[in-house]
Amino acid sequence: MIIESRIEKGKPVVGMETTVFVHGLPRKEAIELFRRAKEISREKGFQLAVIGILKGKIVAGMSEEELEAMMREGADKVGTREIPIVVAEGKNAATTVSATIFLSRRIGIEVVVTGGTGGVHPGRVDVSQDLTEMSSSRAVLVSSGIKSILDVEATFEMLETLEIPLVGFRTNEFPLFFSRKSGRRVPRIENVEEVLKIYESMKEMELEKTLMVLNPVPEEYEIPHDEIERLLEKIELEVEGKEVTPFLLKKLVEMTNGRTLKANLALLEENVKLAGEIAVKLKRS
Amino acid sequence: MIIESRIEKGKPVVGMETTVFVHGLPRKEAIELFRRAKEISREKGFQLAVIGILKGKIVAGMSEEELEAMMREGADKVGTREIPIVVAEGKNAATTVSATIFLSRRIGIEVVVTGGTGGVHPGRVDVSQDLTEMSSSRAVLVSSGIKSILDVEATFEMLETLEIPLVGFRTNEFPLFFSRKSGRRVPRIENVEEVLKIYESMKEMELEKTLMVLNPVPEEYEIPHDEIERLLEKIELEVEGKEVTPFLLKKLVEMTNGRTLKANLALLEENVKLAGEIAVKLKRS
Amino acid sequence: MIIESRIEKGKPVVGMETTVFVHGLPRKEAIELFRRAKEISREKGFQLAVIGILKGKIVAGMSEEELEAMMREGADKVGTREIPIVVAEGKNAATTVSATIFLSRRIGIEVVVTGGTGGVHPGRVDVSQDLTEMSSSRAVLVSSGIKSILDVEATFEMLETLEIPLVGFRTNEFPLFFSRKSGRRVPRIENVEEVLKIYESMKEMELEKTLMVLNPVPEEYEIPHDEIERLLEKIELEVEGKEVTPFLLKKLVEMTNGRTLKANLALLEENVKLAGEIAVKLKRS
Repeated sequence: MIIESRIEKGKPVVGMETTVFVHGLPRKEAIELFRRAKEISREKGFQLAVIGILKGKIVAGMSEEELEAMMREGADKVGTREIPIVVAEGKNAATTVSATIFLSRRIGIEVVVTGGTGGVHPGRVDVSQDLTEMSSSRAVLVSSGIKSILDVEATFEMLETLEIPLVGFRTNEFPLFFSRKSGRRVPRIENVEEVLKIYESMKEMELEKTLMVLNPVPEEYEIPHDEIERLLEKIELEVEGKEVTPFLLKKLVEMTNGRTLKANLALLEENVKLAGEIAVKLKRS
Repeated sequence: MIIESRIEKGKPVVGMETTVFVHGLPRKEAIELFRRAKEISREKGFQLAVIGILKGKIVAGMSEEELEAMMREGADKVGTREIPIVVAEGKNAATTVSATIFLSRRIGIEVVVTGGTGGVHPGRVDVSQDLTEMSSSRAVLVSSGIKSILDVEATFEMLETLEIPLVGFRTNEFPLFFSRKSGRRVPRIENVEEVLKIYESMKEMELEKTLMVLNPVPEEYEIPHDEIERLLEKIELEVEGKEVTPFLLKKLVEMTNGRTLKANLALLEENVKLAGEIAVKLKRS
Repeated sequence: MIIESRIEKGKPVVGMETTVFVHGLPRKEAIELFRRAKEISREKGFQLAVIGILKGKIVAGMSEEELEAMMREGADKVGTREIPIVVAEGKNAATTVSATIFLSRRIGIEVVVTGGTGGVHPGRVDVSQDLTEMSSSRAVLVSSGIKSILDVEATFEMLETLEIPLVGFRTNEFPLFFSRKSGRRVPRIENVEEVLKIYESMKEMELEKTLMVLNPVPEEYEIPHDEIERLLEKIELEVEGKEVTPFLLKKLVEMTNGRTLKANLALLEENVKLAGEIAVKLKRS
């Protein structure tokens, strides 16, 4: 099997992408996040399975050394459709949300964590594979909403068109990564038990969609959306395609003196905790 | 199983949504329609299974009392993606076309009836879950076309893009709910036997799509599309999302002194008859 | 079974559409192409299965006589969604890429060949069923890219959104039918073995998508895209829907004194050769 799954049998498990480490954060912070996430997984009793492609080998449960090697050697950023190509080419590749959900579905990982998902980019032509994957693969995805660089209205509408269930964790606002609010409503849930109830009924009725559990960035780290929008307007785009998101995120770090980096690290940590809690209780249910 | 199916074994059955009753019509007319539809089902020898969610319980084959309770207590309007959430929350919910087709597919109901389906709203950002569901679930759906409040061109094109088969019942015009004509062509069929032939070949080749059988509103009740468009232009939209369609339909009832209400009731009655005939002959085939 | 499959057991096989013969070429050239393609299949040891619908009967492996009868009698141009309707009506119908991939998937043909695929037409409302089918059916499709009459940017982006894997055969340029270049990048592969490696991993990870193998038109026949665009701007569209593509291709033949016809025949011949090679090696693998 081309997937080397290091999932420990019978243990609660959370799948995590590699792009956030390899393309989303500076190296020092990426390793710190990895260590912190592992620490949380030990504390809460679940396995954190970072999923990536090492020289054509799909690995679920990468070690810190393997992640460092990937960062050192460089790795393509891949969505679902690029997986078979980088596997055949024997390359390194960092998975995005779509590839992580796709691969998780194949090896029995039901809970996946990220910072923010992709969506519809301004201009409404470039649309992330994340949406297609979430509309065709069942999983629970914990995130802090969609990346704030996106066309929020078009993405919010397309999530509905594609029948992707959304719930806000202790919020009824659709969050936007660095920002807790967008002015758009989502159903509010209060606890993990409600996540499980919804997910169990999705399984029972065979609804093959990703349940988005939206966990807003902690208040103390929030950057309001209109501030982000004003900054984005000042940025001259110098790249296209898959490089747009990492490029913009890097610029925002510079323009906010690292505030977006702190927000990113904080929300990722909280999302790992929540995803772990869901995975543990799901295992027991 | 979270679906309480009251489908009588071996009997021809037609699935029907609850939104048309709870959000689409005034209460008096809604109950009259329910009784009339039941009467037709008795006359033609099929079961009419109205599908809704009562305090979190999915029921296929709601009684009049249950429908009245839902109207009295109020009920969310839900597409496919909202089903697991309202089930988990133990709420009342009225199903739209997407949710009805999705649930029908799970409990073996092959024929579904409605008035008009959703589609692409003006602005081409808000697109109904109906299209996604019809492009991924097999059923025969009898309707009088798409709701005339929609972007007709974009919806007609998207039905093709998503590979949703269309046939006009004794018409080669793509109908628009209150209007028999749109100036767009569909293949014309003359009788129920042709519906069955098409549907049987869909099953044999495992084409997992909804066959739209388009049954134009009876001529005496028709309101030409340009008249509807002129009225729509005068309406100031005061709501958004799921409330847009019920809001516009109510306004049209007022602006046409009830003519759209009469057309709606008339086309629903005819669609129930045609759907029943299809279900009966499908059972025998 | 409504599909009469004349596939010879155990023999490598390539599926081919009928629209290219019936609607894409003048009759003389269409028959010459058919004979040349058959000749190639004999030389390379694979079966060429031309797929079409003859008086409601789906045939995989049409004879020259049957193809000529279809051209003489006329045939609808059908995508996936129209198949059950023309089958039920007992009509002749020529399959497009979507219908050919859909039917091939049902009878075990894994390699399909065409000239150029459909995509997003200018105006971004009319979008071909080819994209929907390629995003939901697994096959290897050899083509020379997308038809140059399309909105290249929107089609290129939608191929990614829908998770359709692309590889350039000895090119890293996304080709446009008559033109080898579009200025857009695709992963480059050098040989058939790489195609098989990618396809095998798609099968192993159950990625139900079409692998597009892009084989640019031979250089000596190429017509640069900007020349094609200038010609297209001069053409007054007199048809709509399914007739647009054949209408524009015919006009281009006239405006280029047959250069586009020569390019079309040349690329089709090369694509048949490449598809045959893939099918033969796939059978052995």
